Amino acid sequence: MREIGVAQLEDLARGAAILGTGGGGDPYVGMLYARGAIERNGPVRVLEFGEVPADAAVLAISGMGAPTVLLEKLPAGTEEIAALRAYEHYTGITVSHIAPIEIGGINSMIPLALAAERGLPVVDGDAMGRAFPELQMVLPNLAGIRVTPIALADDKGNTLVVDAVDAHAAERIARAACTELGGQLSSADTLIRGEQLDSALVPGTLGLAERLGATVRTAREQGADPIAAVTELLSAVVLLHGKVEDVARHTAGGFVRGHAWITAPEGKLRLDFQNEHLLATVDGRIRATTPDLICVLDTETGEPVTTEGMRYGLRVTAIAVPCDPRWRTEAGLALTGPRYFGYETDYRPIAADR
Amino acid sequence: MREIGVAQLEDLARGAAILGTGGGGDPYVGMLYARGAIERNGPVRVLEFGEVPADAAVLAISGMGAPTVLLEKLPAGTEEIAALRAYEHYTGITVSHIAPIEIGGINSMIPLALAAERGLPVVDGDAMGRAFPELQMVLPNLAGIRVTPIALADDKGNTLVVDAVDAHAAERIARAACTELGGQLSSADTLIRGEQLDSALVPGTLGLAERLGATVRTAREQGADPIAAVTELLSAVVLLHGKVEDVARHTAGGFVRGHAWITAPEGKLRLDFQNEHLLATVDGRIRATTPDLICVLDTETGEPVTTEGMRYGLRVTAIAVPCDPRWRTEAGLALTGPRYFGYETDYRPIAADR
Repeated sequence: MREIGVAQLEDLARGAAILGTGGGGDPYVGMLYARGAIERNGPVRVLEFGEVPADAAVLAISGMGAPTVLLEKLPAGTEEIAALRAYEHYTGITVSHIAPIEIGGINSMIPLALAAERGLPVVDGDAMGRAFPELQMVLPNLAGIRVTPIALADDKGNTLVVDAVDAHAAERIARAACTELGGQLSSADTLIRGEQLDSALVPGTLGLAERLGATVRTAREQGADPIAAVTELLSAVVLLHGKVEDVARHTAGGFVRGHAWITAPEGKLRLDFQNEHLLATVDGRIRATTPDLICVLDTETGEPVTTEGMRYGLRVTAIAVPCDPRWRTEAGLALTGPRYFGYETDYRPIAADR
Repeated sequence: MREIGVAQLEDLARGAAILGTGGGGDPYVGMLYARGAIERNGPVRVLEFGEVPADAAVLAISGMGAPTVLLEKLPAGTEEIAALRAYEHYTGITVSHIAPIEIGGINSMIPLALAAERGLPVVDGDAMGRAFPELQMVLPNLAGIRVTPIALADDKGNTLVVDAVDAHAAERIARAACTELGGQLSSADTLIRGEQLDSALVPGTLGLAERLGATVRTAREQGADPIAAVTELLSAVVLLHGKVEDVARHTAGGFVRGHAWITAPEGKLRLDFQNEHLLATVDGRIRATTPDLICVLDTETGEPVTTEGMRYGLRVTAIAVPCDPRWRTEAGLALTGPRYFGYETDYRPIAADR
């Protein structure tokens, strides 16, 4: 057991935004959100899997929707509690622990905020080991653990509980409601028993995010290269150092979709994204694909650059990081591989490029 | 207390389809649906308001969506039970009585089918005194009775419970889910206590529909004019006898929208509909508007003609029937008057035309 207090939040938010592969929203907004809750209620207890009882009722809490919307429509702070209450009311289960559904931007902070408000411990891990845009793209779904029922709440006091036949149907219903209600909902879903944690979550990703954020900060403070520090910690491959030349994005169906071009003397990198970066192509050759992590950092500061934060002239470095091995299985790639997102290419492990 | 058995269904379905003002789906489909349930389980008990205990838990059961879809996607018969179960599970309330949300087509039959399956009595009345396309358009909403929570189920086994801040928000969420799930859902909503029945429902409309259907049949059997029999029973105004010249309809956002032209030597009638007929204009002069009932009958047989059943060359009679007086109040017209539906006209009571 360790604690996450206000002092750890900035590093954690920075590291989570790097692992969020361009999605997950502005890490600063997420940090403010968790900081307020922790200042009011004290630090959050974080447990490793082995510290969680076998019969614990661990629930994932997250925000659903396009991060672009979140920049203009700040959460009211009551939605997560409303979603959790609706979940408990519908299932009759008393939730004992909270887990992040993904490690990435604001969805790493929201569980901490709720855990602080409700005095619940958080499990150190997440259901993706990165961020993905759709709710069926979680390891519990691969492991045969139901993601439904899903309780959703908005900032106006509306709640709904979706009890669908499978995760894909739940995604369709929840996404339609999300779009209708303004593009941003809080979600409480995916009940995981303590004994299922190993198969349902990637272990230690909150701790990894905190170390990653601290690594960037320390490198900067010591005049070292933050990018080099990040690539070493994550066993990452550098795709390109360059300058953002063009970004196109639009919000549709509850997602931000688009692409960006990054140019350098040695080549031109195209990034395709749907909330998160999904495909990295250098001079027409595919260098990295989902489910591996494609992360963009400010070359000078090592700060994460989200798909919303990407703009003309910014000097950035794109890196690729190996995903959790469970995503590289046939079933994992069917859920999260490039073909699911409509790209006419197979998954190519980034290790082959080194 | 009386009973509705197989023998009463045909008259009831015919009368309900007339009162359904063009919406509510094919009465024959609805009748088959209720007949199967009654044949398996025996007749349904129908109670007048005074026969219902003050603390009874009366729930409205209905189908939601565009009736056009229903012609191609027959209900599985399990959705109403799933919706009722989800409602009882979420609220912890044991439903004691069933009520129709509207009198009109298949939504008059669905409560009878469910009541037969579950052995529950049905209350003789409905929440509109006609049919309307959106779920906030109910007298309970006017009377300050919440329509939420709303439990919805589809034919695949998906359920959701919408607990919205008001009926308009519930309508938006439910409609988005309905569209996403194929355009047809079963709904269990609007808990009415026995002591609230007078303010929440129009009394006796199941009985009225049955008498209306019997009147048409009897007139035909006796060689009398079925249209004259209907107008006398309903205190209706005849708008036009004529021939359908043109029909335009499209299904969008979970509704069927369109218009029809009916011509006669003495004039030309335009009907505007959104699931139900909402506006009747003769030679450019508005003769009837929602919330009054605009009903179309086959001139020869007196059978109701739905907006889907309307086709070129059909000889029809359009009539207008006064709505329940509560719809003519300021609050009632705000919910169901022509301006709500986007027509640039005020409500005009049909009595003024006589």
